[in-house]
Amino acid sequence: MTFSALDSELVGPLFATEAMRACFADLARVRAMLAAEAALARAEGSLGLVPDGLADAIEAVNPSSLDIAALGRQTAVSGVPSIPFVKAVQKRLPSALEKSFHKGATTQDILDTALVLCMRDALDLVAADLDAVLAALAKLADTHRATPCVGRTYGQHAAPITFGYKAAVWLAGVAEAADQFRDIRKRLLVASLFGPVGTLAGLGSNGPAVLEAFARELRLGVAPISWHALRARVAGAGAWLTALIGSLAKMATDVANLASTEVGEVAEPYVPGRGGSSAMPHKRNPVSCTVILAAHAAATGLASTLQMAMAAAHERPAGLWHAEWHALPSLFGLASGALREARSLAEGLEVDTLRMRANIDITRGLLFADAAAARLGPKIGRDASHELVEHAAGEVRRTGETLLAVLQRDPRVAHVEELAAAFDLQPAISAAAPWIDQAIAEGAAVRGRLRQTP
Amino acid sequence: MTFSALDSELVGPLFATEAMRACFADLARVRAMLAAEAALARAEGSLGLVPDGLADAIEAVNPSSLDIAALGRQTAVSGVPSIPFVKAVQKRLPSALEKSFHKGATTQDILDTALVLCMRDALDLVAADLDAVLAALAKLADTHRATPCVGRTYGQHAAPITFGYKAAVWLAGVAEAADQFRDIRKRLLVASLFGPVGTLAGLGSNGPAVLEAFARELRLGVAPISWHALRARVAGAGAWLTALIGSLAKMATDVANLASTEVGEVAEPYVPGRGGSSAMPHKRNPVSCTVILAAHAAATGLASTLQMAMAAAHERPAGLWHAEWHALPSLFGLASGALREARSLAEGLEVDTLRMRANIDITRGLLFADAAAARLGPKIGRDASHELVEHAAGEVRRTGETLLAVLQRDPRVAHVEELAAAFDLQPAISAAAPWIDQAIAEGAAVRGRLRQTP
Amino acid sequence: MTFSALDSELVGPLFATEAMRACFADLARVRAMLAAEAALARAEGSLGLVPDGLADAIEAVNPSSLDIAALGRQTAVSGVPSIPFVKAVQKRLPSALEKSFHKGATTQDILDTALVLCMRDALDLVAADLDAVLAALAKLADTHRATPCVGRTYGQHAAPITFGYKAAVWLAGVAEAADQFRDIRKRLLVASLFGPVGTLAGLGSNGPAVLEAFARELRLGVAPISWHALRARVAGAGAWLTALIGSLAKMATDVANLASTEVGEVAEPYVPGRGGSSAMPHKRNPVSCTVILAAHAAATGLASTLQMAMAAAHERPAGLWHAEWHALPSLFGLASGALREARSLAEGLEVDTLRMRANIDITRGLLFADAAAARLGPKIGRDASHELVEHAAGEVRRTGETLLAVLQRDPRVAHVEELAAAFDLQPAISAAAPWIDQAIAEGAAVRGRLRQTP
Amino acid sequence: MTFSALDSELVGPLFATEAMRACFADLARVRAMLAAEAALARAEGSLGLVPDGLADAIEAVNPSSLDIAALGRQTAVSGVPSIPFVKAVQKRLPSALEKSFHKGATTQDILDTALVLCMRDALDLVAADLDAVLAALAKLADTHRATPCVGRTYGQHAAPITFGYKAAVWLAGVAEAADQFRDIRKRLLVASLFGPVGTLAGLGSNGPAVLEAFARELRLGVAPISWHALRARVAGAGAWLTALIGSLAKMATDVANLASTEVGEVAEPYVPGRGGSSAMPHKRNPVSCTVILAAHAAATGLASTLQMAMAAAHERPAGLWHAEWHALPSLFGLASGALREARSLAEGLEVDTLRMRANIDITRGLLFADAAAARLGPKIGRDASHELVEHAAGEVRRTGETLLAVLQRDPRVAHVEELAAAFDLQPAISAAAPWIDQAIAEGAAVRGRLRQTP
Repeated sequence: MTFSALDSELVGPLFATEAMRACFADLARVRAMLAAEAALARAEGSLGLVPDGLADAIEAVNPSSLDIAALGRQTAVSGVPSIPFVKAVQKRLPSALEKSFHKGATTQDILDTALVLCMRDALDLVAADLDAVLAALAKLADTHRATPCVGRTYGQHAAPITFGYKAAVWLAGVAEAADQFRDIRKRLLVASLFGPVGTLAGLGSNGPAVLEAFARELRLGVAPISWHALRARVAGAGAWLTALIGSLAKMATDVANLASTEVGEVAEPYVPGRGGSSAMPHKRNPVSCTVILAAHAAATGLASTLQMAMAAAHERPAGLWHAEWHALPSLFGLASGALREARSLAEGLEVDTLRMRANIDITRGLLFADAAAARLGPKIGRDASHELVEHAAGEVRRTGETLLAVLQRDPRVAHVEELAAAFDLQPAISAAAPWIDQAIAEGAAVRGRLRQTP
Repeated sequence: MTFSALDSELVGPLFATEAMRACFADLARVRAMLAAEAALARAEGSLGLVPDGLADAIEAVNPSSLDIAALGRQTAVSGVPSIPFVKAVQKRLPSALEKSFHKGATTQDILDTALVLCMRDALDLVAADLDAVLAALAKLADTHRATPCVGRTYGQHAAPITFGYKAAVWLAGVAEAADQFRDIRKRLLVASLFGPVGTLAGLGSNGPAVLEAFARELRLGVAPISWHALRARVAGAGAWLTALIGSLAKMATDVANLASTEVGEVAEPYVPGRGGSSAMPHKRNPVSCTVILAAHAAATGLASTLQMAMAAAHERPAGLWHAEWHALPSLFGLASGALREARSLAEGLEVDTLRMRANIDITRGLLFADAAAARLGPKIGRDASHELVEHAAGEVRRTGETLLAVLQRDPRVAHVEELAAAFDLQPAISAAAPWIDQAIAEGAAVRGRLRQTP
Repeated sequence: MTFSALDSELVGPLFATEAMRACFADLARVRAMLAAEAALARAEGSLGLVPDGLADAIEAVNPSSLDIAALGRQTAVSGVPSIPFVKAVQKRLPSALEKSFHKGATTQDILDTALVLCMRDALDLVAADLDAVLAALAKLADTHRATPCVGRTYGQHAAPITFGYKAAVWLAGVAEAADQFRDIRKRLLVASLFGPVGTLAGLGSNGPAVLEAFARELRLGVAPISWHALRARVAGAGAWLTALIGSLAKMATDVANLASTEVGEVAEPYVPGRGGSSAMPHKRNPVSCTVILAAHAAATGLASTLQMAMAAAHERPAGLWHAEWHALPSLFGLASGALREARSLAEGLEVDTLRMRANIDITRGLLFADAAAARLGPKIGRDASHELVEHAAGEVRRTGETLLAVLQRDPRVAHVEELAAAFDLQPAISAAAPWIDQAIAEGAAVRGRLRQTP
Repeated sequence: MTFSALDSELVGPLFATEAMRACFADLARVRAMLAAEAALARAEGSLGLVPDGLADAIEAVNPSSLDIAALGRQTAVSGVPSIPFVKAVQKRLPSALEKSFHKGATTQDILDTALVLCMRDALDLVAADLDAVLAALAKLADTHRATPCVGRTYGQHAAPITFGYKAAVWLAGVAEAADQFRDIRKRLLVASLFGPVGTLAGLGSNGPAVLEAFARELRLGVAPISWHALRARVAGAGAWLTALIGSLAKMATDVANLASTEVGEVAEPYVPGRGGSSAMPHKRNPVSCTVILAAHAAATGLASTLQMAMAAAHERPAGLWHAEWHALPSLFGLASGALREARSLAEGLEVDTLRMRANIDITRGLLFADAAAARLGPKIGRDASHELVEHAAGEVRRTGETLLAVLQRDPRVAHVEELAAAFDLQPAISAAAPWIDQAIAEGAAVRGRLRQTP
């Protein structure tokens, strides 16, 4: 591997997508740094601050022509990659233009703006995956709106629900994260051009105008004041990515348990060779869930690093800005893998409706205890009915009889004609339906808003 | 103390406000649980599901009459406080109404809704403090728009800015957090009434209508589907509170350093007895900064607990819901103390403008090195000017002369008439002004939106 | 509640023990602060630095006589409780002794030493619970050494093990944490007496001798140099408590799953009223697991706060020391509840050996697939046998036949006489035995070392 | 970059050493996996379980001959790299040996053991760097044992200490971490060979013997029972690495502040091109501190991921094992860079003793307020002397006079002959000396133990 599993040639493909990897590759970073410099030149050129040809000259520099390994060695000395980068690019420019390059900007301007450009591409990938996951979950919820299954609390059978309802909860969870996409994107995609101490003083009174032109060139937003040391947008993005992964982890937690041998209600989509075991040929491990749950645990830690990094001293801190580099791109990497696997689950989950039905019966009617008590309440009193049902539940466990049979032996119950109806699944199906509808509607609305996001 | 410093009679007053403490006190929780039950009764009563008098009867129960310690002992058995609570309240109701109490609801409905009610009060406190902090920072930024001071990066003098600009950055940071208040509030203030497995099946087809009436009674929003196991709103609130505290921690980091003996540019507001030392009578420790920075480190950890808690299994998890109780109210406690201290700083910071001016000169002109190089560039070439200034900087350090004096000894520079102008502070003041204006405008806009929040 | 669930009268008893609560109560803190001052007086008295009667006079002060609420209000001003504490105690001393009180010490000396004294009591509680948990798990492992059950990886049935082996793994996990107890205790239980800047200069050349006498009085260890700003012992204690809770969380994760309705192999000890549901009378929720898993998620966050706090500036930091107060005692609180519940599980877990046996068969022999393939390998080749078994596994799933039946239909297998032996449980039981023995031996050794710890 | 800054060619060299990078490179991992397989073959061969030539045949496989990218693509399918790895290696073995390869082992055995082998190399690097840092800090402390400087609490001048004392505190902090090296190493360097469900049942009664032989082959320790799902050793290693980095972060926090322009007491070692600014030619940023402090913030998050991962379900969890891959090697990467920079600081820190002396005087004697009050106490009473000094301190601030001059104007003080002695630095130097000696002795003892570690 490498230090990070995400970057490993050996295991990285399991955890992150190639498309996301490309967004944050060294070459993509350098390309984005060049794009930032070119936009700066164009913005300054439009105001007559640098020669007209500068931007074109910068754009003519092929990022692949830069020796990234050499830049890396110099970064280890200088402390930031932009210093050797600026020198290396300058050498490639016509000498007359050299001195106009990078005018007024500081290291953090170029690095943060470049990172923002990389994240814009990354967010597009996230949005596309979110859209697909939402679509697939809506379909899953709709398909199974009348598929009864067990509702579980604290790992115990509680009362019947439908599998469509479960999927609708997953859908609503992902939709909640997706509905913040637009805000997060808007907050995050802002240009950084503020100069050494944030006031862009090197450009005199042209500062704000150059920033606006720079941002316009790059189609980025503009913050009211330097965010060199205001890192809430970064921490917020990290928290959001973690919450997004968290919404997938909720689904993965459920799926991994539903796919367990004893429950057996779902299986991850069949992919030849997937989830096998080197020792146990019959196994089918939930690999997608594994990737998602690992991403969740990792993301939680990375997000806390970004939260720490908000206490940035003065106009640039010694440490906390660099700390972000250890965490933010990795969060995108984790999200890419988690979304890919979640999409695979949402689109291809194998649902065993017969097993779901069978599991409802394994407690021989106890799942309907609440409903039975409710039916008996009006006849024999609420407390009496609760006590009766609780006592009957013990009998069911001891004797292996059904709850209905045990209850009907009680003389007070014998005459309750509609008791059998308490064991009907239809009320559970009906009760679940409006929530499914609402979640699907919410999912559709969120998808609509997601697609309108530029 | 207690386990948490926030709850200690001995040190708690340092870290949290009494008003916030009251929001999450045991009594407030029980009162909110009763309010939730009463609203449920009213909602169900309006649909004829329970007798009309139930809600009034519940409201007649005095929360102080419940034996909280006894409830606590039973909670340790049952695993949730709502079970003994329901029993205790039932005993206080007319026996005819007893069986209609808590109808259709589950433990989590009452506890989550009660917590939401507590948090609504808590958020009001947060909003009021945010408003005050924003107002005070805007004033501070405006007052010091022409107060020059040193800009620092990596702890080093970099170039001149103004103190108004620094305050404007703090303002923008807090405004960024405050501007999310409305969304966070809206996401968080939703009712929970979904029954044992989330479908509210116990109320049959009345479920959604009862939820709506319940939420209306409590003036809460409605989620499209049960959030028993969808905890993004909780994790999101935690991340936001941490980011809010983080924005204050940025200010506190700066203030603590500016207040350090060597820098000496600001002091925390004078309060008799504050910041003293048991051993050193002359000291004035930055207590407000201490409280804020401690809150930041603590909040970061608590927020990560909430992020973990998103992977909630099925219809209710065994552990991760309870984990939230360890973290969420404490985050409000930390925020209350941090905001109180930040407000005190923003409103009463002692600013030593003479010391700021004096500190500008301690590097004998090096702070203007960038400006000087810029002036010389057009005459002798950019690279030459950079080299010259770098070399001169060494001379300044060695000899104790000023940068201007050293530079003027160079024959190439001697004739540059406007060089002295590079050491003028006015450009730095002018360059900072538009950003201050923008931050103040942003702060005002955010305050406007904050005040419109219901 | 309170800010922290641990401190709540309503829910705190669920999460922490009363004994542990007493260790960190405000009164216990004040008592420990008095004990530290008395020890200081005695140490200084032994060297003639303060009058002989001072220590007795301090010890005569009843901690309950101090107005803790008043101290708290003053703490909110001064920033630390020791300043009002020192004043309040001084007032209670004979006036001739007043000026000798607290001589040479600084705030942090008294507070850190007092905390150490509280933690010593807390560690005794932890050790006693660890001992009991280890004893009970060893018994559980031994009792079930021949109880076959399913081994599960990734939530899937993998191959047979024994329940004694599972318990032995839990035992080894707790033993691993317990075996660090002695080191953690030794590192943590050191006196703090270093004066305002750590050199104890106020006591002149007597400094080191007074520290030694002070530590001896309190039966604490001595660090080679001031740990006012060296917080590894604190962060290390937090990491250890979290790892300890983590070892319990491993058990709780397993138990909660084994207790799930579909698996049904264990149940938490029966306690009347425990784990019930307000809506579902038949339920028995795993409350102990819930408490432990909640503690684990909470502890992880708190431990990270302590890790952050290591970057303490200079001779005392503005924020990071106070941050510890938000985290360290709470970790002890969480540990107390988690250990209590773990002990209850270890001592009283209800094990359904018939269900364990039955679950082995639910995959109709697939659990023995690995063993079957191993038997067939020598006859038909390893790859062929793997393929055959994999193919047969599919048949088993499709047809509901047993793996043995399917395999025996294959002409190549028909003649393998010992194939049936692959479905024997004895090898799994035998294979598990030595590990159980080793874990029990390790547990006993650790208990021995734990008990020798002073 | 890459997802992780540590792995980037562009910025990775700033954050991690090449030597450490080599330990965790994909090729090193594959090599370690081959070593584990070879050791398994040798262990099994010694017991006659596999043919004698197998180990040699495995060792003949050149790790570079494996197509890592192809393995990576298959890992994305299978969920673990060991499955394609086993297949790929098998193909390279003589066909007669193929079926004996990887006998009895499971994926996690090979991957965990390989990781342990990589970490052994990594720990050697850590130990060497620790030794060098300890040596250099001891020298620094000794060199400056009589160099007076300011002691600072809460960022405020408190009382004089020596720079040697400060360095001794850093030394003691690193020594405390280093002293745990041996235990951490011993706990971490254990073999994993437990088979699919941890009992190594595939090897029948040979299991424990094969494990012992396997461990002996690799010179690793043996755990009493499978640690497939007992991850305290991993979490503990992560906590330790974070604490180690934390001890360096304490030093870096101090150095960054001491190197700030206003304090100016130290500078990072001069390296041409280091710490420059693209815009400000005169700057010298504390790059080493930046690297260390960034590592600390990042490590804290990663360590919390490992703490979470302890709640591993059953015989192997779906997610939490993989989560470790995202965190553990990165912690070694961060440690390598932090140690390299700490060593550079410890060995080459530029100390400006004149500036230290000058800073002592900037408060015109207030640094000696505590000492002055102590001298006056016996004459005029403790309270009176404290009040007098506090009042005089205000005068000093207002008038710019020295504390001595102000005090001597008071008639009660005029006759105190030895008052001037309170402003002598010698007592502070003397008071610091024994602690320096103790820290140096402790450092030497720890180095001795560190070097004895195999």
